[in-house]
Amino acid sequence: MNDTIKYVLDETCIPKTWYNLIADLPVPPPPMLHPGTHKPIRAADLEPLLPMPLIAQEMTTEREVEIPGPVRDVYRQWRPSPLFRARRLERALDTPARIYYKYEGSSPTGSHKANTGVAQAFYNKEAGVKRVTTETGAGQWGSAMAFAGAFFGLEILVFMVKVSFQQKPYRRSLMETYGARCVASPSTETETGRAILAKDPDSMGSMAIAVSEAIEAAARRERTKYAIGSALNFVLLHQTVVGQEAMAQFELAGDFPDIIVGCTGGGSNFAGLVFPFLGAKLRGRKDVRLIAVEPAACPSLTQGRYAYDFGDSSRLTPLAKMHTLGSTFMPPGFHAGGLRYHGMAPLVSHIKELGLIEARAYPQLPCFQAGVTFARAEGIVPAPESSHAVRGAIDEALRCKEEGKSRAILFNLCGHGHFDMQAYADYFAGKLKDQGYAESALALALSRLPAMEAE
Amino acid sequence: MNDTIKYVLDETCIPKTWYNLIADLPVPPPPMLHPGTHKPIRAADLEPLLPMPLIAQEMTTEREVEIPGPVRDVYRQWRPSPLFRARRLERALDTPARIYYKYEGSSPTGSHKANTGVAQAFYNKEAGVKRVTTETGAGQWGSAMAFAGAFFGLEILVFMVKVSFQQKPYRRSLMETYGARCVASPSTETETGRAILAKDPDSMGSMAIAVSEAIEAAARRERTKYAIGSALNFVLLHQTVVGQEAMAQFELAGDFPDIIVGCTGGGSNFAGLVFPFLGAKLRGRKDVRLIAVEPAACPSLTQGRYAYDFGDSSRLTPLAKMHTLGSTFMPPGFHAGGLRYHGMAPLVSHIKELGLIEARAYPQLPCFQAGVTFARAEGIVPAPESSHAVRGAIDEALRCKEEGKSRAILFNLCGHGHFDMQAYADYFAGKLKDQGYAESALALALSRLPAMEAE
Repeated sequence: MNDTIKYVLDETCIPKTWYNLIADLPVPPPPMLHPGTHKPIRAADLEPLLPMPLIAQEMTTEREVEIPGPVRDVYRQWRPSPLFRARRLERALDTPARIYYKYEGSSPTGSHKANTGVAQAFYNKEAGVKRVTTETGAGQWGSAMAFAGAFFGLEILVFMVKVSFQQKPYRRSLMETYGARCVASPSTETETGRAILAKDPDSMGSMAIAVSEAIEAAARRERTKYAIGSALNFVLLHQTVVGQEAMAQFELAGDFPDIIVGCTGGGSNFAGLVFPFLGAKLRGRKDVRLIAVEPAACPSLTQGRYAYDFGDSSRLTPLAKMHTLGSTFMPPGFHAGGLRYHGMAPLVSHIKELGLIEARAYPQLPCFQAGVTFARAEGIVPAPESSHAVRGAIDEALRCKEEGKSRAILFNLCGHGHFDMQAYADYFAGKLKDQGYAESALALALSRLPAMEAE
Repeated sequence: MNDTIKYVLDETCIPKTWYNLIADLPVPPPPMLHPGTHKPIRAADLEPLLPMPLIAQEMTTEREVEIPGPVRDVYRQWRPSPLFRARRLERALDTPARIYYKYEGSSPTGSHKANTGVAQAFYNKEAGVKRVTTETGAGQWGSAMAFAGAFFGLEILVFMVKVSFQQKPYRRSLMETYGARCVASPSTETETGRAILAKDPDSMGSMAIAVSEAIEAAARRERTKYAIGSALNFVLLHQTVVGQEAMAQFELAGDFPDIIVGCTGGGSNFAGLVFPFLGAKLRGRKDVRLIAVEPAACPSLTQGRYAYDFGDSSRLTPLAKMHTLGSTFMPPGFHAGGLRYHGMAPLVSHIKELGLIEARAYPQLPCFQAGVTFARAEGIVPAPESSHAVRGAIDEALRCKEEGKSRAILFNLCGHGHFDMQAYADYFAGKLKDQGYAESALALALSRLPAMEAE
């Protein structure tokens, strides 16, 4: 029997539509609210920031949204992505579980983020936009948008959270290689950035600050719009190519997952894999347990309040009902920079409230340990974000062993760690500590009061 | 018409045999000589360093060598690798040329090196070897061997040329993540290393020194053998999966290359792509021009003498007839560390002498420029080594434009540049200079005298 089992689809199997979970939900998600009127936002409110087709996707209740030809054309470079059976890992764990992973690291920028970057670049180009601003945490999203901008001829300006800008200088070089401009956030290029630097010149930044800067920079310039790497409905929608492909690949495998695990920062890679399976479950097909794994140092789903809050620090965004630690929450500088966001995608939050998914939080050390175990068994070094999903899957596999049960576990290996080797070096050198519950609980207490505007 | 054209084979198309060019050559290559007797080496001479199946592959004249099942099993993780038509690059260059590239960067360590790493790990494991030593330049080979060692349960010790060890610390972290040990060469772990450090504590190392250290370390320990990432016949043999797949993919495309370009350091990625096409040509099939591209700062094929020389600085290897700059040649610290080898694969040297291939040398700046052009057009950032092949292909495409001819150009994009972003950062910052003909000519003059032992 082979140890390497890869389920490959040909390019005709790249999905022709994105899947919209909202169509199958028993209860619709609460609307986003206008920050001034506290009434549900209208398309026109978002128009200064986003091209109309993306606004329509944000609001649609249709089950399927057609993927434009030019987007599928670019997807072809790395899609359909492979589904692997992790047989060497199963053996290393001595578990009866059947572990599968969908691998999104084969995209040119090494993560799932390109799935939505390409779509957002396409719609902006179609709308006559010249320049797109965005924020990035660990840099995976920024480089995906830079890559997409190069293909569609857009100028890209990326505000990168300063702690990651310093930890991962090569992500910046990657963005520049694609022709984008990348600045550390808080920056001197926006009022938001300047105000924060005036108060705290050493601010390490946060996703919420970087979002504010990107929105402000877009609003102030002509023919300039804003792109976003997670959280919003349309971003989650674009990622559903992942789960749709995985469903087809499980048919090839003659198997079906009992448990699906994904890491959550903003929520998009988790949603991308999980939503198509959840939709099928809601339509009466097979049952499946769905587990979101987040960092203990930024535990929005497990510790945050479910309330209306802003997506950014300067309160420029609409209010969204979500699990939030407060938009001024400043997560510690742990290494999974892509998971350092104070809030959770409203749609992921909503299905958590409906009891359709579980959530758990892990400190970073056991995640790095899982990442190393995985790399040695399966050959691929996971991004620190993805190693949270690896940890979750390994723990479920170990539970199968305890219980003597053979369950099928699927997780999203949403990116490789080739740009994160400093984190692994620090891990091996014993320099990483677990900035977990205790520390984040304090930060949380400090940050909670000013949030929750329109609850 | 689609811009993204990818020719994909299913896993049943992974070659079942490696292709041995020697079987089709009009003149056999000169034998390697024993350094003491100057007589052709025998299998027994190599046995302290290599397991017998690899020695047999080094010497065989059979056209086809079977690929063991467990090796093909691991190949499955990333093979068959894709062949792309570079239509966006063609448009950016406004050329009538049809440009294709075979992409080897989708292996877990990001380059073609895993093709031979897996094979060498398998044969060593089968032979009861416990520990394998090797050298690495830029780190692509060292990490491929570390990856392969993790899969086959071997201890791996890598001597990494110090200039690259310092330029690319994350390659070391990658090797360590796979469980290997990586030391800067010259090191204090061998007599060779200690002697060099005694004379020059600041020695930046060279591939020839690192080879000496790895051989010495293997020879001194029990159940320890030596692995090598390029140059020898069996390494070139293992890489022929690349060219064999490309031939099948050109059949899918209904096209055939007029020109094939590969970069050459030790020669293995060039050979891997080119040999199957050259063999077909020698057997009377279609004609094709074959172009080896090397760095002007280490120009063995274009400037070296064709003579018997050692593969390492301490003269521990057999003598091989090859294009060489002298085994004490110290190439400047340019960024394509994988191409910083004083010699050329004897088999590649031989076919150069037979007039079967062309060679040209490029300074590094035009290669980086080509790499950036390619990244923006095709989305993949090339390793600095691979960008030499990109430059060669672009120049041929521009010549097509001048001449108004539509030729098919194929090149080997043998690795991605995700571990080489410091080089790109330096390039954008204007910090790179061209250590080209002038400087290397001086180093060459200084180094030439002590080489050429048994000419």
